[in-house]
Amino acid sequence: MNADPRIPEEPREPLDGPEALERRLRWIGATRYHSLHPFHRLLHGGKLDKGQVQAWALNRFAYQSIIPIKDAVVVSRFRDRQTRLEWRHRIEDHDGGPEDEGGIERWLRLTDGLGLDRAYVESMRGILPATRFAVEAYVHFVRDRSPLEAIASSLTELFAPNLHEERISGMLEHYDFINPEIMVYFRRRLTQAPRDAGFALDYVKAHARTPEERALVCEALIFKTNVLWVQLDALHHAYVGGMIPPGAFAPGEDAP
Amino acid sequence: MNADPRIPEEPREPLDGPEALERRLRWIGATRYHSLHPFHRLLHGGKLDKGQVQAWALNRFAYQSIIPIKDAVVVSRFRDRQTRLEWRHRIEDHDGGPEDEGGIERWLRLTDGLGLDRAYVESMRGILPATRFAVEAYVHFVRDRSPLEAIASSLTELFAPNLHEERISGMLEHYDFINPEIMVYFRRRLTQAPRDAGFALDYVKAHARTPEERALVCEALIFKTNVLWVQLDALHHAYVGGMIPPGAFAPGEDAP
Repeated sequence: MNADPRIPEEPREPLDGPEALERRLRWIGATRYHSLHPFHRLLHGGKLDKGQVQAWALNRFAYQSIIPIKDAVVVSRFRDRQTRLEWRHRIEDHDGGPEDEGGIERWLRLTDGLGLDRAYVESMRGILPATRFAVEAYVHFVRDRSPLEAIASSLTELFAPNLHEERISGMLEHYDFINPEIMVYFRRRLTQAPRDAGFALDYVKAHARTPEERALVCEALIFKTNVLWVQLDALHHAYVGGMIPPGAFAPGEDAP
Repeated sequence: MNADPRIPEEPREPLDGPEALERRLRWIGATRYHSLHPFHRLLHGGKLDKGQVQAWALNRFAYQSIIPIKDAVVVSRFRDRQTRLEWRHRIEDHDGGPEDEGGIERWLRLTDGLGLDRAYVESMRGILPATRFAVEAYVHFVRDRSPLEAIASSLTELFAPNLHEERISGMLEHYDFINPEIMVYFRRRLTQAPRDAGFALDYVKAHARTPEERALVCEALIFKTNVLWVQLDALHHAYVGGMIPPGAFAPGEDAP
């Protein structure tokens, strides 16, 4: 039973080919991607105060900073040089280079702009334990599962551009402490994510050759939607519900 | 600043010996053990309905069922036979034997008694993603950190007996769907936990020989208190706050 009209009904077709797989993956995104999480409605709708936005940016830094580590593990899973070459640019996108800012640096422009101390952010002392467990689960997943599942777990990028567009316009409109300069991370991802997602989608459609392998691809995407959802649940509980766990960032306090 | 009179102030002494280490560990327990979590006050005080208690027992099964796997990893970290022999009984305590019920079976008596379908519980389909990430983080921790830290992460058992006594009496008093027979897991742990905790405490006091090693022991205990706290935060958010994430157990629905 599904009373919410925004949530499309589960496709009942068997996973007997690449197109059925893609339809199932898009259904998973439409029902489980964290764009549906109430915290995002609050964030994009201007309903949070600056301390709550700081908590979000601080915790999301833990996710951003683990992504190139995760991608290095993915690269390490492939004996095929072509796949390693293709995947390697993701590490570069996030880590940048000696003269080239990457995604992590761009994220720190956001936390700087929000007035968070950079050394405190980078220390990750104040992040929520649930954030830590979720982002580390992502690294363990790509290390311990099959290479096919490792690639499939990146497929949330299929759904990221719409979310990022909503975020950029919503946050610029609603918060006087947000300006275009500190939102540069998201603008850059608008072009990076579709390219990456396209490769990963083509890869799983070509390499998942049985219904069982296609089911594993779907499970990998569900896993990843959980990694994202858990982070927002934890933020909501701590900074909207007010139940900040011991040791975590408390808005308004100086960095400990 | 610490306005809560129940929370003792942090000891500022250096970790320059085993007794200073023990005092710090007991302070960590007094400030971070999940006995302090609001969900436990609701659970033990009779403030939850049966569906919420089901959700707690279902999710806690995921933790119970990973413990012997975690302990097998700990055993695998020691080249010293005596330590392996000592630690092995923990696997036996939880897994039991061909003619002997263990802790996992005793936990299933609780979920049976609460009316949960045993196959559904064992499938772990309905557990919260945060529970899964937290319990898996525990296994990864004992695999990836030093053997000393692996043992130190078990030290929450120092604080378990008081919590279990409060739980047994509180739940028997307040819930008509709880009876002594289905609470047998906790009664058994009243004798098991102190023995195990005593060994682990003696071990870390003897084997952490520098302030740096003692600090790692403390960090391991903090990590473990986070593993426990995250599980209750997730339960509280989903089943008290009402924000059940996609795919998780919904009280009142049949097992999907």
